[in-house]
Amino acid sequence: MPSLDVYHELAIPAPGKVVLLVMDGLGGLPRDSDGLTELEAAHSPNMDALIARSICGLHDPVGPGITPGSGPAHLALFGYDPIENQVGRGVLEALGVDFDLKPTDVAARANYATLDGRGLISDRRAGRIPTETNVHLCEILSKIRLPDAEVFIRPGKEHRFVVIFRRQNLSDKISDTDPQATGVPPRSVEALDPVARPTAELVNRFIAEANKLLGGYRPANTVLMRGFAKHPQLPLLGEVYGMRTAAIASYPMYLGLAKLVGMETLTVGPTIANEIEVLRENWDRFDFFFIHVKGTDSSGEDGDFERKMRVIEEMDAQIPAIQDLKPDVLAITGDHSTPAVLKAHSWHPVPVLLYSRYCRPDGVTSFGERACVRGSLGTFPAMNLMPQMMAYALRLTKFGA
Amino acid sequence: MPSLDVYHELAIPAPGKVVLLVMDGLGGLPRDSDGLTELEAAHSPNMDALIARSICGLHDPVGPGITPGSGPAHLALFGYDPIENQVGRGVLEALGVDFDLKPTDVAARANYATLDGRGLISDRRAGRIPTETNVHLCEILSKIRLPDAEVFIRPGKEHRFVVIFRRQNLSDKISDTDPQATGVPPRSVEALDPVARPTAELVNRFIAEANKLLGGYRPANTVLMRGFAKHPQLPLLGEVYGMRTAAIASYPMYLGLAKLVGMETLTVGPTIANEIEVLRENWDRFDFFFIHVKGTDSSGEDGDFERKMRVIEEMDAQIPAIQDLKPDVLAITGDHSTPAVLKAHSWHPVPVLLYSRYCRPDGVTSFGERACVRGSLGTFPAMNLMPQMMAYALRLTKFGA
Repeated sequence: MPSLDVYHELAIPAPGKVVLLVMDGLGGLPRDSDGLTELEAAHSPNMDALIARSICGLHDPVGPGITPGSGPAHLALFGYDPIENQVGRGVLEALGVDFDLKPTDVAARANYATLDGRGLISDRRAGRIPTETNVHLCEILSKIRLPDAEVFIRPGKEHRFVVIFRRQNLSDKISDTDPQATGVPPRSVEALDPVARPTAELVNRFIAEANKLLGGYRPANTVLMRGFAKHPQLPLLGEVYGMRTAAIASYPMYLGLAKLVGMETLTVGPTIANEIEVLRENWDRFDFFFIHVKGTDSSGEDGDFERKMRVIEEMDAQIPAIQDLKPDVLAITGDHSTPAVLKAHSWHPVPVLLYSRYCRPDGVTSFGERACVRGSLGTFPAMNLMPQMMAYALRLTKFGA
Repeated sequence: MPSLDVYHELAIPAPGKVVLLVMDGLGGLPRDSDGLTELEAAHSPNMDALIARSICGLHDPVGPGITPGSGPAHLALFGYDPIENQVGRGVLEALGVDFDLKPTDVAARANYATLDGRGLISDRRAGRIPTETNVHLCEILSKIRLPDAEVFIRPGKEHRFVVIFRRQNLSDKISDTDPQATGVPPRSVEALDPVARPTAELVNRFIAEANKLLGGYRPANTVLMRGFAKHPQLPLLGEVYGMRTAAIASYPMYLGLAKLVGMETLTVGPTIANEIEVLRENWDRFDFFFIHVKGTDSSGEDGDFERKMRVIEEMDAQIPAIQDLKPDVLAITGDHSTPAVLKAHSWHPVPVLLYSRYCRPDGVTSFGERACVRGSLGTFPAMNLMPQMMAYALRLTKFGA
């Protein structure tokens, strides 16, 4: 696989417009009743008509057998090597709560937890306290003041929250405090590199202050922290390929991932129709659009086969509205599989279709996992999709003479 | 992909004869009338009968989405990584005019151009002067004498020519003089590395002399130079695999590329039948033959779908003559795609068939882009073809015990 540098050198200005439509967790598994997957069972006449004029295949998000999280799965679709460009858990959590992370910030994922009378962890999740309690406790922790540093506390769901430390010269080379076990005490943060010692001291001081403030509460009387991470410095997608890039998504996590690679983010209402409306309104302002549809993943995680089918059908009904805009390239895929049967992300390759007037249609007439096996794209690394979209939009010039 | 070193260690002497038949720019795109590509529409009963006894697939010359030039596309077919082994523009131009480049030579692509009264470039191509004028001007420039160095001037077509500098210790790490713009003066050559300073001085002196000699001419009163390059030092194909290699082509560029990897070049008349005749005459002298057919590419570049079909049909008629020689391995492919629809090289994967009595035929019965999608070779990097041809010719021994 050629490097991004090679593609950057080949990128040329061109009018070609590209739409990457990602149905999160699109790939599925057969249900017992008729052996069809969610995508195969869904009634999707518009995508079926489109694939007949497209090339298709399946992508492997990270590598054979690897079940990806949202971060690596999206980075791969954006054309980045998901193993070389790992995004720390703390950063993903900060993106998920829509926090505007600076390059020097260190972010961590945190849990409210319960310590017993002997100082040992009795519940790593503090009995999954209600989110409202979490919000209240985060307000309390926001009173913590640290020397020369700012601390930002943002509640998540149930017992989860995010802590961001802001000071010059912080390092993310520090160890977790969460021992991932009960009956043992929380760990102290340790520097994994000598330059990280001041950061470790700062975080330990924060935890000591938090323990003081939370001491009177039950069951959430302490905090556990892990996944300390800084914002990765990725080459920006728009600069690599010389185009104006935009992300349309209703969940902050995905807008955050798009921001990591420099996309402008366009916020939208909750429905797929809202997203396509925003696409239309902004059509002239950008060359590349990433559209993210969440419902396929959440229904898959819930094990709701029928609901996942309906989300696919809802998306299908909007395909003509995208086609009306006459994109030069339209790719439809998922970031990974989330089979309802597994109620979780999975490692299964993800169906993908790529429409362009300059393709050799594969003769596949329905969009589904097994149909895409017969496509000319074969099963390929997800990071190879982006340069192919660029080529089909006539945005790459000749390599060598 | 294992390295050439690995394959070199596995290479053993064997009687197997291998023919690599390259129809330049073979891959195409569907025409509107019936949705068939050039290769699909061509009547090619001999290749269809052959593919039924072959394995097939498509190759990606350089990488996903990358449109290759002839240089990298051929190096990949010869089994070299086309990104790690880039051939400079000056070298390709020298090969194209059949100049016998030494490893110490530095070659550059040059244009005759027009300077206005203020010394600014008014036409980078000197009005595309006739080739005869070019030949005359090259004779004049051939009179230039430089201290301790030889200079060779070879005309190309219209305003294009090639300059080769010969002296010990020359470097190709020098900048272009062509600013690729008009209304600005030509640039001086600058050393991009301290060791290249004497080379930069030499080339600047050549340009000063050229300007003196051309000063009286219109419109070609100066020269612009770019793509300074030395002959890359590639492992020789015959040495890697321990076999006698020959190239049959009617265009010097492709004979030059074959020379880069150490093939003996056999010159031929202009027709495909001439090429096959040369193959027959030299059959006993070599183990490996690279046959290059140009017409598929030039017709594709001209946007002439019908002519490209006819070239394929002309080639097909010669297949029995190749089969009469009983090659152990016969691979038929292109170096890249040149769809008539695009009138240019493109990034589309290239169909390939590989015949050997030791293959598991794929059940494909016609040679075409979409038919090859169903082949067992899948879509694979072009550089992987050569070692497979060697294996099918029983020229590689066991790896490990």
